[in-house]
Amino acid sequence: MQTIEWTDMADVALGGAVLGAGGGGDPYIGRLMAEQSMRRQGAVKLVSIDDVDDDDLLATACMMGAPTVMLEKLPEGTEVLRAFERLGQLLGKPVKGVLCVEAGGLNSTIPFQVAAETGLPLIDGDGMGRAFPELQMVTFTLHGVSATPMVLADDKGNSVVFDTISNHWTERLARSCTVDMGGSALVAFYAMSGKTAKQALVRGTLLLAQRIGQAHRQAQKDKTDPREAIIQVTNGVRLFDARVADVERRTVGGFARGEARLIGQNDSRGDEYALSFQNEFLVLERNGETYLTTPDLITLLDQDTGQPVPAEQLRYGLRVTAIGIPSDPKWHTPGGLALVGPGYFGYDVEPRSLDTLPVRREA
Amino acid sequence: MQTIEWTDMADVALGGAVLGAGGGGDPYIGRLMAEQSMRRQGAVKLVSIDDVDDDDLLATACMMGAPTVMLEKLPEGTEVLRAFERLGQLLGKPVKGVLCVEAGGLNSTIPFQVAAETGLPLIDGDGMGRAFPELQMVTFTLHGVSATPMVLADDKGNSVVFDTISNHWTERLARSCTVDMGGSALVAFYAMSGKTAKQALVRGTLLLAQRIGQAHRQAQKDKTDPREAIIQVTNGVRLFDARVADVERRTVGGFARGEARLIGQNDSRGDEYALSFQNEFLVLERNGETYLTTPDLITLLDQDTGQPVPAEQLRYGLRVTAIGIPSDPKWHTPGGLALVGPGYFGYDVEPRSLDTLPVRREA
Repeated sequence: MQTIEWTDMADVALGGAVLGAGGGGDPYIGRLMAEQSMRRQGAVKLVSIDDVDDDDLLATACMMGAPTVMLEKLPEGTEVLRAFERLGQLLGKPVKGVLCVEAGGLNSTIPFQVAAETGLPLIDGDGMGRAFPELQMVTFTLHGVSATPMVLADDKGNSVVFDTISNHWTERLARSCTVDMGGSALVAFYAMSGKTAKQALVRGTLLLAQRIGQAHRQAQKDKTDPREAIIQVTNGVRLFDARVADVERRTVGGFARGEARLIGQNDSRGDEYALSFQNEFLVLERNGETYLTTPDLITLLDQDTGQPVPAEQLRYGLRVTAIGIPSDPKWHTPGGLALVGPGYFGYDVEPRSLDTLPVRREA
Repeated sequence: MQTIEWTDMADVALGGAVLGAGGGGDPYIGRLMAEQSMRRQGAVKLVSIDDVDDDDLLATACMMGAPTVMLEKLPEGTEVLRAFERLGQLLGKPVKGVLCVEAGGLNSTIPFQVAAETGLPLIDGDGMGRAFPELQMVTFTLHGVSATPMVLADDKGNSVVFDTISNHWTERLARSCTVDMGGSALVAFYAMSGKTAKQALVRGTLLLAQRIGQAHRQAQKDKTDPREAIIQVTNGVRLFDARVADVERRTVGGFARGEARLIGQNDSRGDEYALSFQNEFLVLERNGETYLTTPDLITLLDQDTGQPVPAEQLRYGLRVTAIGIPSDPKWHTPGGLALVGPGYFGYDVEPRSLDTLPVRREA
């Protein structure tokens, strides 16, 4: 068991942004919410799933939608607590631990708030090992865990309980309600036993997020390269340095889609990269050929600061270092690729993983 | 107590169409569903709210959305039964009787199916005394009854439970889910005690619907004027005969909106009428002045058949007799007018009721 203090949350949030692979929402708001709760309620106990009893009931907490709408009035965590309590009532069994759905982006930090407010332990791991845009895109789905009963709660006091025939249906119905609720809502869902979670979870990803943040911070302090520090701690690969030449954006079905064109620097000088995103960076092409795709993580780091660059901050002239981070092996199975491979997102390319890449380390 | 046989449903459906005031959805599908269930399960007991114990729990059944999407595959009632059973579970108390939300249109017939399938008595009355397009537009809202917990169920097996801070919020969230579910869904909501229903209900409207249908049928048999028969049984007023000169339609937010221009015949010859509808007929102007508005019912009857004409069937050249039917007095209160008066629908006119009308009976 680890104890996470509120002062650790900046590290977790930076790590969450790296694992966000360009999307997942800005962890900053979740960090503020978690810090606020942890200052009031005390530290959070982060436990390994191996230390959870097989029979214990666990439930998953997250925020759905666009967190920016919450910037103006920071929620105090009552919505997600309400959702969590309601889920426990529906299941007729006390929830013994909090699960994280998405270690990348905003949802890396929300479960810390829920754990602080409920006093429940937080399980170290998540359902993606990264960020993905839709709520059925979790390893839990691969293991047959239903997203429902799912409770959605807004800041006004409305709540909705879904019982659906598939996790795709949960996504569809909950997405509409979230839009109606003003663009964001808090969610309790994916309830499962400790035994199931031991199979279905991507393990260790919250401590990994914290370690990424620590490594970045230490490198800045030591005046070493924070990009290299991040690559080491994530078991990542440095792909290339490049300059953003062009960004095209459009909003489709509530998701920010687009493509960026990048021109290689240094050893990659002259290479041209096309990076497609739908919230997250999903497909990277080099000189017209598929180079790396979802489910592996494509993350851009700012060359000056080593900070992860979200897709929404891509702009002409920005100098970035592209890194690849291997995704959990569950995602490279046929079922995993059907759920989150490039085809699901409408890209007519074969999945291409880091393993297949003849990478030159340029550092 | 009355017993309603499946062979009575044609009358109920015709009366429901008259009380639909041009909207409410075609009762035909609901009639087929009810007939199917009543042939299998037997007749429905229609009881007065006065015969219900104050402590008995009642719940309301209806269909939400566009019934036309159900034409291709007629539901067997399992969705609405599922919704009804789930609501009882949520309330932790057995439901003792079925309430109707809307005596006009499709929803005049759906509760007969639920009563047949559950074996519960159906209470004679409804929450509107007519049809309105949104689910907070009920006398129940005026009496402080919450629409939630509300269960929405589709034909695929999905269900959603809403708990909202107002009945407007219920409408908003449920409308979106209904669209996602393919355009229509079955609903169980507005649970209340017998005591509350005695206050909140518009009484006697289901038997009224049946009597309207009977009167129309008898007049056809006797070769008398079915329009006059309908006017008598509804305590209505014959307004004018006219010919449809023009219809403009548009779809806004899932609702069919538009205006029809009618040219008076007979005593009204030369008068020009403008009839605005949003599903239902809501505002009638004569020669540029407000003539009759919601909440009173504006209903058009075909001059040849005496059949009610829904807004969606208005077309150039159609000859109609316009009648007015007084709405329940609850709707003429300030609270009632705020909920369903012309202002709510965006018409900048004062409400004008049948009482204020210098009507000439032309018959």
